Amino acid sequence: MNAEIISVGTELLLGQVVNTDAAIVARALSGLGIDLLHACVVGDNPQRLKEAVETALARSDLLIVTGGLGPTTDDLTKETTAAAAGRKLVLHAESLERIKTYFNAAAVTPNQEKQAWLPEGCTVLQNDNGTAPGCAFTAESGCTVIMLPGPPSELEPMLLNRAVPYLKTMQQAVIVSHNVHIYGMGEAPVAMVMDDRMDGENPTLAPYAKEGECYLRVTAKAATEAEADALCQPLIQEIYQRLGEYIYSVDVESLEEVVVAELARQGKTLATAESCTGGLLAKRITDVPGASSVFHMGAVTYANAAKEALLYVPHEILAAHGAVSEETARAMAQGMVQRSGSDLAVGITGIAGPDGGTEQKPVGTIYIALSDGKDTWVTKRAPIGRTKSRDWHRHCAASQALDMVRRYLLGLPVAPEK
Amino acid sequence: MNAEIISVGTELLLGQVVNTDAAIVARALSGLGIDLLHACVVGDNPQRLKEAVETALARSDLLIVTGGLGPTTDDLTKETTAAAAGRKLVLHAESLERIKTYFNAAAVTPNQEKQAWLPEGCTVLQNDNGTAPGCAFTAESGCTVIMLPGPPSELEPMLLNRAVPYLKTMQQAVIVSHNVHIYGMGEAPVAMVMDDRMDGENPTLAPYAKEGECYLRVTAKAATEAEADALCQPLIQEIYQRLGEYIYSVDVESLEEVVVAELARQGKTLATAESCTGGLLAKRITDVPGASSVFHMGAVTYANAAKEALLYVPHEILAAHGAVSEETARAMAQGMVQRSGSDLAVGITGIAGPDGGTEQKPVGTIYIALSDGKDTWVTKRAPIGRTKSRDWHRHCAASQALDMVRRYLLGLPVAPEK
Repeated sequence: MNAEIISVGTELLLGQVVNTDAAIVARALSGLGIDLLHACVVGDNPQRLKEAVETALARSDLLIVTGGLGPTTDDLTKETTAAAAGRKLVLHAESLERIKTYFNAAAVTPNQEKQAWLPEGCTVLQNDNGTAPGCAFTAESGCTVIMLPGPPSELEPMLLNRAVPYLKTMQQAVIVSHNVHIYGMGEAPVAMVMDDRMDGENPTLAPYAKEGECYLRVTAKAATEAEADALCQPLIQEIYQRLGEYIYSVDVESLEEVVVAELARQGKTLATAESCTGGLLAKRITDVPGASSVFHMGAVTYANAAKEALLYVPHEILAAHGAVSEETARAMAQGMVQRSGSDLAVGITGIAGPDGGTEQKPVGTIYIALSDGKDTWVTKRAPIGRTKSRDWHRHCAASQALDMVRRYLLGLPVAPEK
Repeated sequence: MNAEIISVGTELLLGQVVNTDAAIVARALSGLGIDLLHACVVGDNPQRLKEAVETALARSDLLIVTGGLGPTTDDLTKETTAAAAGRKLVLHAESLERIKTYFNAAAVTPNQEKQAWLPEGCTVLQNDNGTAPGCAFTAESGCTVIMLPGPPSELEPMLLNRAVPYLKTMQQAVIVSHNVHIYGMGEAPVAMVMDDRMDGENPTLAPYAKEGECYLRVTAKAATEAEADALCQPLIQEIYQRLGEYIYSVDVESLEEVVVAELARQGKTLATAESCTGGLLAKRITDVPGASSVFHMGAVTYANAAKEALLYVPHEILAAHGAVSEETARAMAQGMVQRSGSDLAVGITGIAGPDGGTEQKPVGTIYIALSDGKDTWVTKRAPIGRTKSRDWHRHCAASQALDMVRRYLLGLPVAPEK
């Protein structure tokens, strides 16, 4: 099955928004084993949209159109697409009722009502996060057409909860994918370790990069979900055999989710003492709903005086070794364990750039310490290769801190042997 | 001048990466007054790339191709595009030398050398952030072709520093744009206030949304940059007349940059005490290079005990009013001013969701306090309209805190009169 995406919206052509919708849809299609061959952006222009839809209906088995389902005069996806596909629009009573309920009104404006007009005979895709329903139907040409709303917060749930199940019913086979998330080894060495398994047909194995880390996607196809999953498992086991301690999860997207869950499982608490990451580590931990059961206190000690006042870092250490040193990181972590009463504490100090680097301590030099009140481990990040941004250095330092906590909780080596 | 973008890369069609490149290029074209009519994604497939390029050369005045300039076998943008445009590739000696220098080697692999082969007679666009140079030339069809590298950290500087100046030399007129950034009024009310100026021809005025805020873009065209800028200024003044205190900057992208600069200008320091924002406010402040001159200390007091221990919030206040209350926010800010010795401190406490809401204090209820050691102001965020995400609530609360600091520093009302 060949697919095509048309993203509708002049704001995309003006660069006002990034086309997140296309990536969300593309990822879902990849997980379904559907080949996406074309993805285009069209402005709120009926003629160009009509041409793009006609081209897609002729060359693709599946067309997904995003955007332009709303109540304004710019929203013309449905009428244009339906017309090109040979369907007329009819009023869907249930959708109209839901729109009235949303506005808590007995009647709504014609613009708002427009959203309840859908291609005759289509499968209506309910919108649980906005007013405009989506739809799915098969055009005269045999191409399946799915229309989804533009805002990602509306598109993603509708896609995953309604459109994907719809597509699965059309598939002979079932596709199952698992993502094996890795920290501490880059995409290239990981690909080398798994090289002999990269050309498999079923399951397939593909490497993907994320900021400062990577993951391996295992995908298999079979008659049922259970059979497809069973095809994935031996390869996942093989990956564990070879990459073991570097794997932080299967299908859990981030280190922070894994760490918060493991802390909760073990009934342990973590505190943070941050200098160069400036609150980013605490922010990532508290991004996870329920973090309050494992995280109670963090400090952002951006100046030396703050390190002394909040964390009891001895003045002598700062004077002798400087703020950016193994000794200071160690003292920050140890001080935070005492101050917070938490089981564990992380201390991070470094130079995120772009300024502040010296020859001895260039931009990207970051020390990360983990203390459990008895022992303390320190790792060091040093800059390599091309210049990285301030954001990148801070993100990676926070990730490394989370990985050290993960390793501690699982009894894995926290820092390389000296 | 009509433009078209082709983004090359199978990873885009697999949904592995979001097409940030297209948005970056589109924004730049919009700033140049060039109409972008088409934007497509093509995989690392020579046949489909050739078709897309041929279509573009026939229908557009400007084609920008991003991605596929690198050293791997998948990178085939140059040969395919140049062939379709009637140019052969020749070795550019200076680019080869730069690649050798990058690897600190006397000779490089054929794959790496490939990056130095460029369309004969083209203008070479140097890459200061990677190995692959870009290029610009005019095809037989009269279409101007620009090729840029895929990674955004390489594309954006090359685009802004080399491709945009190249395009400006081709333009008869000069376009100048200014963005007027607004906090505290939404896009719809702002558009209503400026409604009578929205249909101007030169300068033009357009509203754009950002997360929890909006901006107005003023764009003018004239023979020289100075003349175009002079056309913008009266409209910018008019916007100030009508929106005054809600404007936080012209052309400075974020509240945090504005606040850090104004704190530095006034020689003042700010400390932060965060509960539900979990470090995000400190993180945003320290995103700004040079923040260390105005920001020394932040606390993330995620548990009540931490509020008492770090910020001296009286136990009685927490017991009587709860963690999420005006009284607690006030005590956090006042406690932080004392603890930190900074001139100002912000305290934020609330419910970011998705859990934790009650009928009296639903998700999105957030109190933000600002203290200067003498006076304290508190504002409250309450949820309105459709459900928002945890991220959104935290981002907006941090933005509101920054806006309160901005208003304080400029002598504007910090909180609405009760």
